[in-house]
Amino acid sequence: MQELTGYKGQALNLIKAAGASIGDSLRLTRDGESVEGLLMPRVAGEDDTHIVLKLATGYNVGVKISEKSRIQVLGTGAKPALSRPPTPAATKGLPLVTIFSTGGTIASRVDYRTGAVESALSAEDLYSFVPELASEANVRAKVLYSLFSENFTTKHWKEIAEAVSEEIRSGVSGVVIAQGTDTLGYCAAALSFALQSSPVPIVFVAAQRSSDRPSSDAATNLIGAVGVAAKAPFGGVVAVMHGWLSDDILLVHKGTKVRKCHTSRRDAFKSINTAPMARFHVEARKLEMLGNDFPLRGSSSQLVCKPNFDDRVALVKFYPGLDPGIIDWYVTKGFRGLILEGTGLGHVSARCYPSVERAVHSGMFVGMTSQCLWGRTNMNVYSTGIDLQKIGVHPLEDMLPETAFVKLMWVLGQTSDSEKVAQMMRSDLAGEISPRRLETSEDGKDH
Amino acid sequence: MQELTGYKGQALNLIKAAGASIGDSLRLTRDGESVEGLLMPRVAGEDDTHIVLKLATGYNVGVKISEKSRIQVLGTGAKPALSRPPTPAATKGLPLVTIFSTGGTIASRVDYRTGAVESALSAEDLYSFVPELASEANVRAKVLYSLFSENFTTKHWKEIAEAVSEEIRSGVSGVVIAQGTDTLGYCAAALSFALQSSPVPIVFVAAQRSSDRPSSDAATNLIGAVGVAAKAPFGGVVAVMHGWLSDDILLVHKGTKVRKCHTSRRDAFKSINTAPMARFHVEARKLEMLGNDFPLRGSSSQLVCKPNFDDRVALVKFYPGLDPGIIDWYVTKGFRGLILEGTGLGHVSARCYPSVERAVHSGMFVGMTSQCLWGRTNMNVYSTGIDLQKIGVHPLEDMLPETAFVKLMWVLGQTSDSEKVAQMMRSDLAGEISPRRLETSEDGKDH
Repeated sequence: MQELTGYKGQALNLIKAAGASIGDSLRLTRDGESVEGLLMPRVAGEDDTHIVLKLATGYNVGVKISEKSRIQVLGTGAKPALSRPPTPAATKGLPLVTIFSTGGTIASRVDYRTGAVESALSAEDLYSFVPELASEANVRAKVLYSLFSENFTTKHWKEIAEAVSEEIRSGVSGVVIAQGTDTLGYCAAALSFALQSSPVPIVFVAAQRSSDRPSSDAATNLIGAVGVAAKAPFGGVVAVMHGWLSDDILLVHKGTKVRKCHTSRRDAFKSINTAPMARFHVEARKLEMLGNDFPLRGSSSQLVCKPNFDDRVALVKFYPGLDPGIIDWYVTKGFRGLILEGTGLGHVSARCYPSVERAVHSGMFVGMTSQCLWGRTNMNVYSTGIDLQKIGVHPLEDMLPETAFVKLMWVLGQTSDSEKVAQMMRSDLAGEISPRRLETSEDGKDH
Repeated sequence: MQELTGYKGQALNLIKAAGASIGDSLRLTRDGESVEGLLMPRVAGEDDTHIVLKLATGYNVGVKISEKSRIQVLGTGAKPALSRPPTPAATKGLPLVTIFSTGGTIASRVDYRTGAVESALSAEDLYSFVPELASEANVRAKVLYSLFSENFTTKHWKEIAEAVSEEIRSGVSGVVIAQGTDTLGYCAAALSFALQSSPVPIVFVAAQRSSDRPSSDAATNLIGAVGVAAKAPFGGVVAVMHGWLSDDILLVHKGTKVRKCHTSRRDAFKSINTAPMARFHVEARKLEMLGNDFPLRGSSSQLVCKPNFDDRVALVKFYPGLDPGIIDWYVTKGFRGLILEGTGLGHVSARCYPSVERAVHSGMFVGMTSQCLWGRTNMNVYSTGIDLQKIGVHPLEDMLPETAFVKLMWVLGQTSDSEKVAQMMRSDLAGEISPRRLETSEDGKDH
């Protein structure tokens, strides 16, 4: 029974008894509670105790059924799952948005309709899967890669930057980059440096739950990302992801400040050392800015693309007993940059000093960040910090260690003048360094 | 004017005009607002616009003054700052608590009274500085080290474990270990494994703000730590630190789950992947347990001390483009254990597989944690995780990377049987692995 793809056992029986088929609008009742939505297909091999409904919010939810559950068919659906609808004709007046897919959970979202694992993303797939997109923008979909994001390197960042640059120069209103969540923060930081003065939004998006799971966040995140790309009042690199457990609010994070802080939750992405830039209200399709510290859309007429990165940079997390020999190993290998992820305000053990000194003398730029992640480095408080600065280590303010690492690769891709490198690393180029706040008792100052 | 140690300029004039001296109870008024407390000394060299008062909560606060500020003396103090009071005679019936100082900001808290930088901690210093301690417990103070915590190694963990063990065997009601915040989480994890079945609390405490600053958290944290050590209903290793910005609530964190998550805030320490064990209400001196998942005080009659650690363990944080050669470097150096801090659910790039495979073949234990910090590794979702498990990498559930690193050093200090190592690493020995929760939509499961 092809119309009920993926359902079996108890769930299949319940659907059959109601005479419902995929795409139908129905009401599912259990113990006096009810939920309404469109009946969605499932992937074969799943359990037989959930029925998946697409709610009015565009969000898919898996409803647990029991023997007491009842289904009432409210209307017959267009059964869009049975064949892909044609790409809608461009709607006049709607902004044009390009979606690049690079792989990851979000790009495999199309499985959901076909029941097969496909990681490519075509415009047809998108409209079939999230028809709401057609009312947000005229969407152009391009497949760049089909890669797990942990396999990304500077080569991919460069290619993505160039592809995005080309689209923006062609006049699109915004670009969306769909990728795996694992290294999204690193890639968003990379593009924040590589693509400067963007007149339009460059929006990273991903999903924590794959499409074959009732709790997938793929559709909602994609709707938000396209909405932001099409209409946000700012230009530049951001990430749009779930803001909380529910699917009504997404958050817009600055590309240099976003970090994945949970392995599985949909609200895993956080803005670190800064507030999120904006909230996207899913049902109302409304973007609410949370401050006014952003470059206005269109305020720059010319995108600058500087996509070169130098791979010879290492990120070393300090821990008690760290063998300083690994710093020497990087020196021997000809590395040009080292980001230390120190403890607290920016410390490593005294045992590391000779190796750090050799690194500095070899011409390597050595920058200090904190494994605390939150807060600002301050290497003037304790003698450890002062000693390290004397050796030549540069405190990198409140930059995320991951962003500092990406930035150093990019800076070394622009210049080999060591004074210029230090000056660029210590300046805020793309929102990666927050301005020092006024004296507050919790910002390292007395009150 | 010795009685007004440390005050100068505007602040000194205001105090003199009121005829107040150190230790006096006074009311400071400005713009209609007023605050009452005991006048405290300051360290020379500080600004002249703050007056430091010790509030009824035991907390010192720096009050900013202006030309409109007025002081009213409410009572004459005992001027305890002028000479150290003798150690109070032991109060019958009060629990005996040993405080070990190892260095760090909290141990330099005695500066405050003397105006000099001293990092040793005597019982006299403690009572002089926090007289409230005398009503909580009979305190015995011992100086172990005067070290920045970033310089701690397994040698120090072993010595601290042995010293704590000796005190507990001598019959104290609890032990407090005061140290630097930077590697407190690592050290608390180390003692959680090294000291098992403790019949009494072993309490780590620290300060984010040194004693010469009005916003210091040293006194409050120490009162809480001694209170917990003296009276908590549980045994085992915990950390007691500020729970929020204000000084009314401290949190008690499990030693294997606590992490420093801010460079400067007083509430920098968080329980990761678990709720804090308890709240300590400072003013009421009351401990409120937040669950019942703890070993009861005295339920074990015999402390087990296994203080050996193997240093040949590395923690490697993965990032895009990581040169897998560093894994080979550790193999060549004869390391016996490797904790990977992977991305997301527990991933590293495919480029790392051959090196990881060589590490496993060399007999090294390789464990996977996540740089997300929050959430659980799951290496059965994506092919990356499955491939790594086939190579022989062990997923380490929701263990903090830092705790996994410390645990592996400890496990390799107990056994060289590789099967036993794997079995111990994958079992919960000291609360480092949270039990899998029931299916919840945000724990990697559908709802």
